[in-house]
Amino acid sequence: MSDEASLEPPLEPVSLSRRLAAEALGTAMLLAVVVGSGIMGERLAGGNDAIALIANTLATGAGLTVLIVVFGPLSGAHFNPAVTLVFALRREIGAGLAAAYALVQAVGGIAGVWAAHAMFAEPVWQVSAKLRAGPSQMFSEAVATFGLIVTILGCVRLRPAFTPMAVGLYITAAYWFTASTSFANPAVTLARCLSNTFAGIAPASAPGFVAGQLAGALAAAALMAWLLPTRRA
Amino acid sequence: MSDEASLEPPLEPVSLSRRLAAEALGTAMLLAVVVGSGIMGERLAGGNDAIALIANTLATGAGLTVLIVVFGPLSGAHFNPAVTLVFALRREIGAGLAAAYALVQAVGGIAGVWAAHAMFAEPVWQVSAKLRAGPSQMFSEAVATFGLIVTILGCVRLRPAFTPMAVGLYITAAYWFTASTSFANPAVTLARCLSNTFAGIAPASAPGFVAGQLAGALAAAALMAWLLPTRRA
Amino acid sequence: MSDEASLEPPLEPVSLSRRLAAEALGTAMLLAVVVGSGIMGERLAGGNDAIALIANTLATGAGLTVLIVVFGPLSGAHFNPAVTLVFALRREIGAGLAAAYALVQAVGGIAGVWAAHAMFAEPVWQVSAKLRAGPSQMFSEAVATFGLIVTILGCVRLRPAFTPMAVGLYITAAYWFTASTSFANPAVTLARCLSNTFAGIAPASAPGFVAGQLAGALAAAALMAWLLPTRRA
Amino acid sequence: MSDEASLEPPLEPVSLSRRLAAEALGTAMLLAVVVGSGIMGERLAGGNDAIALIANTLATGAGLTVLIVVFGPLSGAHFNPAVTLVFALRREIGAGLAAAYALVQAVGGIAGVWAAHAMFAEPVWQVSAKLRAGPSQMFSEAVATFGLIVTILGCVRLRPAFTPMAVGLYITAAYWFTASTSFANPAVTLARCLSNTFAGIAPASAPGFVAGQLAGALAAAALMAWLLPTRRA
Repeated sequence: MSDEASLEPPLEPVSLSRRLAAEALGTAMLLAVVVGSGIMGERLAGGNDAIALIANTLATGAGLTVLIVVFGPLSGAHFNPAVTLVFALRREIGAGLAAAYALVQAVGGIAGVWAAHAMFAEPVWQVSAKLRAGPSQMFSEAVATFGLIVTILGCVRLRPAFTPMAVGLYITAAYWFTASTSFANPAVTLARCLSNTFAGIAPASAPGFVAGQLAGALAAAALMAWLLPTRRA
Repeated sequence: MSDEASLEPPLEPVSLSRRLAAEALGTAMLLAVVVGSGIMGERLAGGNDAIALIANTLATGAGLTVLIVVFGPLSGAHFNPAVTLVFALRREIGAGLAAAYALVQAVGGIAGVWAAHAMFAEPVWQVSAKLRAGPSQMFSEAVATFGLIVTILGCVRLRPAFTPMAVGLYITAAYWFTASTSFANPAVTLARCLSNTFAGIAPASAPGFVAGQLAGALAAAALMAWLLPTRRA
Repeated sequence: MSDEASLEPPLEPVSLSRRLAAEALGTAMLLAVVVGSGIMGERLAGGNDAIALIANTLATGAGLTVLIVVFGPLSGAHFNPAVTLVFALRREIGAGLAAAYALVQAVGGIAGVWAAHAMFAEPVWQVSAKLRAGPSQMFSEAVATFGLIVTILGCVRLRPAFTPMAVGLYITAAYWFTASTSFANPAVTLARCLSNTFAGIAPASAPGFVAGQLAGALAAAALMAWLLPTRRA
Repeated sequence: MSDEASLEPPLEPVSLSRRLAAEALGTAMLLAVVVGSGIMGERLAGGNDAIALIANTLATGAGLTVLIVVFGPLSGAHFNPAVTLVFALRREIGAGLAAAYALVQAVGGIAGVWAAHAMFAEPVWQVSAKLRAGPSQMFSEAVATFGLIVTILGCVRLRPAFTPMAVGLYITAAYWFTASTSFANPAVTLARCLSNTFAGIAPASAPGFVAGQLAGALAAAALMAWLLPTRRA
């Protein structure tokens, strides 16, 4: 069992504290981008939600690519408990480290939402009232996370240098081709419960989202284990 | 005669079942992106079709690049019977495998449309009533497919690593510079007959589209055979 | 004196007929993209010119990158008499070949405009009535072409592999930061005289545009000759 | 102490006059892009500020990437006194050269604003009346500059070839996820005081912006010194 759950091969051994700091900071910045650009988009778009979502998409796709470029060599740039779970199932990260990753992802994500609120002079503490429920939303999250894991596992194996761009481009597409705008990430889902803005989700809708995400992630992991067998010797 | 019809050199021999699965899954995800983002764009755009098409374009260009990155090394990432035909004429893929590719592309494409409908809580079974007829539409499809084949054959020969990005960027442009929004793909055309949404096409218009696509593909294949002769020995 | 006016090093000697065909076809496709996406943008945008220009920008930036990727190794992918002139002044292309390039660029550009008209069921023969006059427009063209030549000469010398993307990104920016939407190309200016659509320019405004373009090109060539001296031996 | 404050390793020793010219010209072109595309966006957007900012974002992200590609090998492409300060604190640029960089950045930035005004037939001399005040704006600038320095220091160390694209993508995101639209640059702040257009900022708001920028830059420099220790021997 290895502790190298990196999307990228690390340049050198990275200490545990730096790994966790990278994972927390990266997830915080991701949520600041998602929630902040959602607020800005909604404020400026004059009621046209497509324009607000285009802005939200541009910011998220661009920002996510940069965060994976910068933090990938340090922590693997998971920023996502579903991704960490898949690497744990593949035994590319130990269970203890995986649990620590998930914890700092959750804490970082919430900090990022609060930073976005502070930047936009919103109350820091909020709870979303935006229901996103029903089987179509859950299926959307399953598809969204399935595609994300397929993208990550395919790139890590076949084209590692393109991984940051591929993940950013994938989310750019997924904001639009899924009915749920593709959260695809339990830590993001949790954090967005705490923002009653464009990007928020009511806590009552969160369990369905997370269930869909985990189902999609597991399906993708199983498929890719068959499609790209790791034994090459 | 070779069976290596890849846009990218495969990392290792890929079994037939994995090739066909990659081709089917990739085409399914492509159609889910095209049709899903079309539905989302139209729902949010408040009646402004340019905004809906910008969203559709961003999602398709980004998603297609990612799909070619991930599936290119497995199946060549054709996702398109016109592309497969060109490689068959160039004797870079055998006739039997080419026929199998076209079949799974068609089946995958339809499955992708149905997945998009399920995500957006639309009836799964639909038939488009959107007529896209006339010589200008056919000529548009010929130009669109001509440019696609020129892009693919030029990149594969001259800059293989840029192929996924180039194809995504080409389609980004082609959604706008052709009057038909550049289907450029018989499997996509067939699948979009089964969606009565933004991206749909009435079955009555499909034969003209496919005829234009094949004419454009053959013209591009002939031109590129002269422009980039393959004999280098 | 060399005949290798390539933005990219050619993979192998390319015959004169193939060079000229590449230059003509590339310029034709560039104009089809510029004019076609302008028509589509204007038709769909519901009177909002910013939305139309965003669509026009996305298509042009994406399409131009692809065309340079594909045709760069064959002809250098100038598509622009101002670029050819600069390479001729730098003695990287002979005078005779430069004149032939300029001729096929002009012919190809006009063919591309006509192809766009045919795709959109517009009359093939048109003359623009859109005046774009005044010193601010001329200064805009000078700045636009200055920046284009700085981009090309900087990339060719310092980062050749990034040239196609850099030129596409430069034009993406220049459509918006210049008051003239950055034609930056005498062949494009001539061809756009023949389209009375979104991207057109009245013939009466063309000489001022071309004068600005040449002034900007020469200023950039002089600056870059100082900034990046070619003697390295 | 080294004078090599490059974002990129220079290809060969670059003379002081060329370095300063590159830094001045690059900053001038950056401001022409920022202010010019702001004017164009506002003029065409029909009152929808989100559409204007999308255009402003596309132009700035694309243009900034190109400018770093071209001028990075010459001067390091700082274009930003906060970036120069961080490299000076890291002793990667001498104090005298750093001061000269800051001076030509300021002069270049103002020249770029005036060039934009001339292109758009605006009065060259303007002073902005657009107040951007309050703690949320200052905090936004701190976050924006923090993220910019994290991006630059991470890329320079871990993925230098991706630096130009990463900085362009970061600013693309930051225009939207910060309430201040991410100036993140004291020279840009100064220059934008002299434009009473979409991108302007009232001189009374500038000190708060610069204070936020410096605080964010110093915090990022401290964090990255810990996260990516430079000693590898």
